[in-house]
Amino acid sequence: MIRTKSFRSIVKNYKAVFFDAFGVLKNHQGLIPGIINTFEYLDRKEIKYYLLTNDSSRSPEMLAQWYQDRGVRQVTADKILSSGMVAMEYFKLKVSNGNSVAYLGTENSAHYIETAGLKTVAVKNIDLNDIDHIESFAFLDDEGFNWNEDINKAINLLRKKNMAVVVANTDINYPVNQNDVSIAIGSLADMVEKIIGKSFIRFGKPDAQMFLLAYERALQDIDVKRNEILMVGDTLHTDIMGGNKFGLDTVLVLSGNTLPEMAQIRISSSGIIPTFICESAVVE
Amino acid sequence: MIRTKSFRSIVKNYKAVFFDAFGVLKNHQGLIPGIINTFEYLDRKEIKYYLLTNDSSRSPEMLAQWYQDRGVRQVTADKILSSGMVAMEYFKLKVSNGNSVAYLGTENSAHYIETAGLKTVAVKNIDLNDIDHIESFAFLDDEGFNWNEDINKAINLLRKKNMAVVVANTDINYPVNQNDVSIAIGSLADMVEKIIGKSFIRFGKPDAQMFLLAYERALQDIDVKRNEILMVGDTLHTDIMGGNKFGLDTVLVLSGNTLPEMAQIRISSSGIIPTFICESAVVE
Amino acid sequence: MIRTKSFRSIVKNYKAVFFDAFGVLKNHQGLIPGIINTFEYLDRKEIKYYLLTNDSSRSPEMLAQWYQDRGVRQVTADKILSSGMVAMEYFKLKVSNGNSVAYLGTENSAHYIETAGLKTVAVKNIDLNDIDHIESFAFLDDEGFNWNEDINKAINLLRKKNMAVVVANTDINYPVNQNDVSIAIGSLADMVEKIIGKSFIRFGKPDAQMFLLAYERALQDIDVKRNEILMVGDTLHTDIMGGNKFGLDTVLVLSGNTLPEMAQIRISSSGIIPTFICESAVVE
Amino acid sequence: MIRTKSFRSIVKNYKAVFFDAFGVLKNHQGLIPGIINTFEYLDRKEIKYYLLTNDSSRSPEMLAQWYQDRGVRQVTADKILSSGMVAMEYFKLKVSNGNSVAYLGTENSAHYIETAGLKTVAVKNIDLNDIDHIESFAFLDDEGFNWNEDINKAINLLRKKNMAVVVANTDINYPVNQNDVSIAIGSLADMVEKIIGKSFIRFGKPDAQMFLLAYERALQDIDVKRNEILMVGDTLHTDIMGGNKFGLDTVLVLSGNTLPEMAQIRISSSGIIPTFICESAVVE
Repeated sequence: MIRTKSFRSIVKNYKAVFFDAFGVLKNHQGLIPGIINTFEYLDRKEIKYYLLTNDSSRSPEMLAQWYQDRGVRQVTADKILSSGMVAMEYFKLKVSNGNSVAYLGTENSAHYIETAGLKTVAVKNIDLNDIDHIESFAFLDDEGFNWNEDINKAINLLRKKNMAVVVANTDINYPVNQNDVSIAIGSLADMVEKIIGKSFIRFGKPDAQMFLLAYERALQDIDVKRNEILMVGDTLHTDIMGGNKFGLDTVLVLSGNTLPEMAQIRISSSGIIPTFICESAVVE
Repeated sequence: MIRTKSFRSIVKNYKAVFFDAFGVLKNHQGLIPGIINTFEYLDRKEIKYYLLTNDSSRSPEMLAQWYQDRGVRQVTADKILSSGMVAMEYFKLKVSNGNSVAYLGTENSAHYIETAGLKTVAVKNIDLNDIDHIESFAFLDDEGFNWNEDINKAINLLRKKNMAVVVANTDINYPVNQNDVSIAIGSLADMVEKIIGKSFIRFGKPDAQMFLLAYERALQDIDVKRNEILMVGDTLHTDIMGGNKFGLDTVLVLSGNTLPEMAQIRISSSGIIPTFICESAVVE
Repeated sequence: MIRTKSFRSIVKNYKAVFFDAFGVLKNHQGLIPGIINTFEYLDRKEIKYYLLTNDSSRSPEMLAQWYQDRGVRQVTADKILSSGMVAMEYFKLKVSNGNSVAYLGTENSAHYIETAGLKTVAVKNIDLNDIDHIESFAFLDDEGFNWNEDINKAINLLRKKNMAVVVANTDINYPVNQNDVSIAIGSLADMVEKIIGKSFIRFGKPDAQMFLLAYERALQDIDVKRNEILMVGDTLHTDIMGGNKFGLDTVLVLSGNTLPEMAQIRISSSGIIPTFICESAVVE
Repeated sequence: MIRTKSFRSIVKNYKAVFFDAFGVLKNHQGLIPGIINTFEYLDRKEIKYYLLTNDSSRSPEMLAQWYQDRGVRQVTADKILSSGMVAMEYFKLKVSNGNSVAYLGTENSAHYIETAGLKTVAVKNIDLNDIDHIESFAFLDDEGFNWNEDINKAINLLRKKNMAVVVANTDINYPVNQNDVSIAIGSLADMVEKIIGKSFIRFGKPDAQMFLLAYERALQDIDVKRNEILMVGDTLHTDIMGGNKFGLDTVLVLSGNTLPEMAQIRISSSGIIPTFICESAVVE
């Protein structure tokens, strides 16, 4: 069995922590038991914390509400950085005034983009004979549309008109319970990209823009260098790869995607090496 | 513009012809006009002909009926070789007596496998707590199931039990009218393969086993060597690549997937070089 | 630990055996100890045997000599089927009289193609201003040329003239001793294909044409159906995948690439399932 | 033919310009004729400029010298941001004191890393029995080593010891004259990554970290927002993709990789859409 360290003994040496959410702070059953201690400890030590999530289906406010409802008052909207926010930044800079962003996802996922003053239109509501106003396309969420009908419609829209396509969640699947997974919008986007042969723009860990957004947020709160920040995640290819590449120290926790008995073999076979390994992010 | 030859001047030099169906003999509007002349010419010249199709959604009998209904009496079931047949061959040899093949597709697509004495079960009818009898899995057709529900269910079945997975149609999309395409089962299979990280077995052009099946059928009718057979198709990566690799001479026709104005650029950029290029497979 | 069966108890039920060579009959130290017993047993039982190898660097005669020199008189050239032979078949059918096949590899690897009456020219000897006579290109062996100079020269040749490119050995690396591997010509070909963006023709396991060649050879000796043949190999993605797909029963042996402690995890994670698992192909 | 705009009419609206070097400012024959006018114009208008290059073979000082030697006094080392600098940043943050970075490349390419106080060791000088001090690996340049010997040695080093691997130049090839290209270190790295099955860390356009480095440099000189910066490049997949994704306006110039007659087809088929298209970056 792999040798782990206590999370407390590590985190105390940093000025700020970036947390992945699923598998680190919560799982399909709810909060990771004891995780509230971690936030109380960080508050006492005046260590800043931020959540980095490849979730573009909800606004930071909605994501924060989940924690508030479970008594973790520390996780507020301003602590949450999502790949949906990076996508929104992009659309704000690149979509012309008055034009629309077509999307696959729920109304919730699009609502967030609209808060930036952008127009959106669900693929199911598009008239393929009236697409002049559509300037960009976003893959936001795997729910909210009919897969067969609307993915095919999206393909034909993208064949009719050349436009920038953004994938706001690059995860390929996500757990729905102890045993089962569900296909994430990232996989659907990969399939469409291969069929139409174009190059999509991807946001979300391990991409540097996600870490940049979080780093800029941290800089608003404290003066901190990259090597004074700890990235904590349960997935080698997103959390640890992205954190390492951005120059952060990284902790792999074994409370999520990467099972204790597989951790060493996954690290060896992937070549993605966390700075530390901990059982979980719980401070006992 | 690319220089083409008359199909008659080429085909007369061969003992047998392998035809791709869609884009060569028919398109979304029906038979390619004049194609019946081709079959009458081949009959007069005693040149044998066979259809090779990456279509696993229907039996040869059902595929042949389409031609019969349109007056092409020459295209009978025994002239048709489909990737569904190669898949059925595989299941006959490899699935144990009494066990089942799970599938995504229409009942029609599964019915064909059942004619070989095999049991099949649609993914939607599977009880994930009772899967001992399921020994193999087939991707057959993009219709006949709920994409969201059943593709996710297929993924969780394949995570629960390790079994051979066959992709009986490797096309990534197909035309539904002049302008639009629809995602083919091959793309859905590629997505599932990537998510679960396993290696699927693929049948259909350009794979050699498809050509082997057709060649063995031809040998039942005549004594013919590979270089006495002409492969006729509209798609470089399946028809022409597969034919070349199997040692056949090949004709690219410009009546389907490969448009006349793009033919030369596609050949140059792909490095897949047909022996000949013809406007169509019609014998004037 | 995985449960294995004795090779003798399995092989006795078949009319013919296809052996992979490296990791099954020999390794970097020489013959697998005791393997000669296997051939004597097969001879006594009148079970036919053939070697299928992704080795295009030597002729069957040269490959057989290695076994003869070590006292295995049973392995003669007519028992050996190599991916180089499939490539030679292709060139015989597709290269015009008088034209040349350019190649990367040793003179030995090209000599074999020349025995079929074809002309060859090593990349290092090509004058890039005189390439009209070059009709096809072959990746044969990782030795016999300067990697830096000649791979770059090959790329520029293939950019200047569109021609069919054959990869006669699709292995990506090969062991040179207990610990170390060496890059195989298949990896160099993959790199060149990606750089020039074209589609190469690949021969060798798991491709069906390799198995077809061996099956046709077997049919010259005996009347045998596919499910009466046993494929024996140490590598899931080539030997076992290819054998399964061709409809053969398969044995994974643990004397080569797939280590005993990793066999089950490799089978589970790849979804490539051998019919049987044996310690080795040695008949005690 | 595609409609282009004059570079002057566009660039005048921005506070800063990011230039790709090869194909924009220079080509294999030397400086792009007239490009010095562009720098003089930008100086007059007080528009800042920076060079972003996927070149990790030389230090900014050496890269700047090339321009100085040709009379472009404006291009000084502090204006140049290379993927080698991003790699050096990474090593400074992640490699422990006293440990070494193994590399493939020239001594020049490694010298630059050493200026940050890091130790380096060329693969050819490594003793594979004494690798405890090697903590990281860098692909720097395609020259300076024996491809056959040293790439194989690198593979066996990376199999013996798990370490982070950085690819400091992700280009797959580069032009050596009007007609010919040469394999870049990025392609060699891709090949090694595939053989050993690990995940390498890639720096250089289109990756966001390259743009972040340049943006941080610009912020030292002026107060500028992302949408006040213009990225100018000749390659859709690196310059334009990366610039768009980072939120910059982009200009595709037709003086390099993307030929005028192919520009529209490349844009349509890739889905990578520059904000503007110009014949060149020359201000007349």
